[in-house]
Amino acid sequence: MRPSSDVAELAAGVRAGQLRAVARTLTLVEDEHAALPELMAGLTRSVPDSLVVGITGAPGVGKSTLTSALVSPLRARGSRVAVLAVDPSSPLTGGALLADRIRMQEHALDRGVFIRSMASRGRLGGLARAVPQAVRVLLAAGYEVVLVETVGVGQSEVEVARLADTTLVLLAPGMGDAVQTAKAGLLELADVLVVTKADLPGADVLAGDLRRMVRLGTPDWPPPVVLTSATQHRGAGEVLEAVDAHHGWARGTGGLEVRRLRRAQTEIEAVLVEATRTRLGPQLYAARLERLAAEVLDGSRDPYDAALRLSRPALGS
Amino acid sequence: MRPSSDVAELAAGVRAGQLRAVARTLTLVEDEHAALPELMAGLTRSVPDSLVVGITGAPGVGKSTLTSALVSPLRARGSRVAVLAVDPSSPLTGGALLADRIRMQEHALDRGVFIRSMASRGRLGGLARAVPQAVRVLLAAGYEVVLVETVGVGQSEVEVARLADTTLVLLAPGMGDAVQTAKAGLLELADVLVVTKADLPGADVLAGDLRRMVRLGTPDWPPPVVLTSATQHRGAGEVLEAVDAHHGWARGTGGLEVRRLRRAQTEIEAVLVEATRTRLGPQLYAARLERLAAEVLDGSRDPYDAALRLSRPALGS
Repeated sequence: MRPSSDVAELAAGVRAGQLRAVARTLTLVEDEHAALPELMAGLTRSVPDSLVVGITGAPGVGKSTLTSALVSPLRARGSRVAVLAVDPSSPLTGGALLADRIRMQEHALDRGVFIRSMASRGRLGGLARAVPQAVRVLLAAGYEVVLVETVGVGQSEVEVARLADTTLVLLAPGMGDAVQTAKAGLLELADVLVVTKADLPGADVLAGDLRRMVRLGTPDWPPPVVLTSATQHRGAGEVLEAVDAHHGWARGTGGLEVRRLRRAQTEIEAVLVEATRTRLGPQLYAARLERLAAEVLDGSRDPYDAALRLSRPALGS
Repeated sequence: MRPSSDVAELAAGVRAGQLRAVARTLTLVEDEHAALPELMAGLTRSVPDSLVVGITGAPGVGKSTLTSALVSPLRARGSRVAVLAVDPSSPLTGGALLADRIRMQEHALDRGVFIRSMASRGRLGGLARAVPQAVRVLLAAGYEVVLVETVGVGQSEVEVARLADTTLVLLAPGMGDAVQTAKAGLLELADVLVVTKADLPGADVLAGDLRRMVRLGTPDWPPPVVLTSATQHRGAGEVLEAVDAHHGWARGTGGLEVRRLRRAQTEIEAVLVEATRTRLGPQLYAARLERLAAEVLDGSRDPYDAALRLSRPALGS
């Protein structure tokens, strides 16, 4: 994959929507492959009519089930849909995701649906780099709708949900009340609040409490509260209507543009280290970093000064 | 806090080990305050005789209990001890940490013990920046031992555990078996394996399985397996012996130096964005980032190229 012609070919494959090219590129994103800067340069594309939906909530709240239920109505109106399931991939808690993915097999034969679990191997902050880049790849490949599913257990996962055009926060009866939700700042994060497992006792009380809390906050966009039940096969259509309503509102007020600019800003900052490494070349970069780390360790230089020296153009090294 | 004299005073306070100065500085680290680069420049200090211990494991495995139990023997041998409890601080799961901290009140009146929960507010990758800097602050303040407790639920939390001189991985009977642990790569992460809740059934089987798995791997340092029981008040001393043994081994083989260099490298890379912002000044930085994000959004520039332009010295802007 090293020669530039291979990279150009791979980027062309992504732009043509070839599944293998998309899958391979996402693996390179996960691995933070050295060819990414060149590859991403071939995947710049403005996709104003896209829709990126973040779906977050505590483990067990029903994220995968709702994600899967959203795919069918989206397909029915002609959108190509990509699902990016962000796997916090802790060595300590991994394992549940495979089972989740199996539930989505109903869409396995549909060429207009792309499903991918995504972990961040490697270095710190990897998820922050990987997710915006993965969304870029999927949009470039012609998926108009990208559903990004993240487990709301770690800071980075929640932040990732914030990068969407529209963010769904899922809650289930018996997994925390409305006051906790408000205290945790979740009402501010949510564009749509979804009470899952609405067939369980307490769902209506939770929904009512959430609606009251929302009204108290008097936000510009009071997040609608939608009840869903997977066992009763209801609610997915209403969730989609709420997503569309938010998307239309955000487009009209300019809020959508603001979010997308924020996503691009995050992406730029997230790749600063990689861009610096590419500019210097991996060997010079590694040699510099090693020397500077030794200086930080022996107390002769502080980390900020070291970072600035690391990012100097090669001549001044 | 803006004038340089205040920053210098705060840094001097930290170096003198003043509790208020340390606490205030850690808040600035959490907030990613603009004065950090200047502040950190006053906190460079080589502390070769320090010991940074990472303590990680699934929620409920007993991390806080063991951390608290380690403090007393460390104090008994004269070390000043800082505990940094990294709070993944998801809005979706927060809340359990306060109760954990209360358990540590037995050390509340000991001036040689500093206890702090640390969340990363703000932006993506925040934990990666905050933890190494917090460790730097605590070492500069004269705490020879820093215990960094992280919940092993998110990628970043586990990575944080890797930054320690010695990493403890905690497991409890009934919370996953040895094979899962090995598969998840935890044996490679652990320098000491601790089976907590050893009074519960299955502890000996788990410990035996772990020992067999360790032997199969034939690593340079086969992590010892130590059993602890908080209810029976046993095991903390043995854990500390194992930590000391690993620390001595790592010091002798040069592995300790390698880890500390890696920690410094991570820290340098983690502050690259902040260092760049400081060099350009916040206004020029923000204006540049905004313009570049718009170009990335309209497809006229790729994120890597944008990142390089962001980091150019001011004249070439």
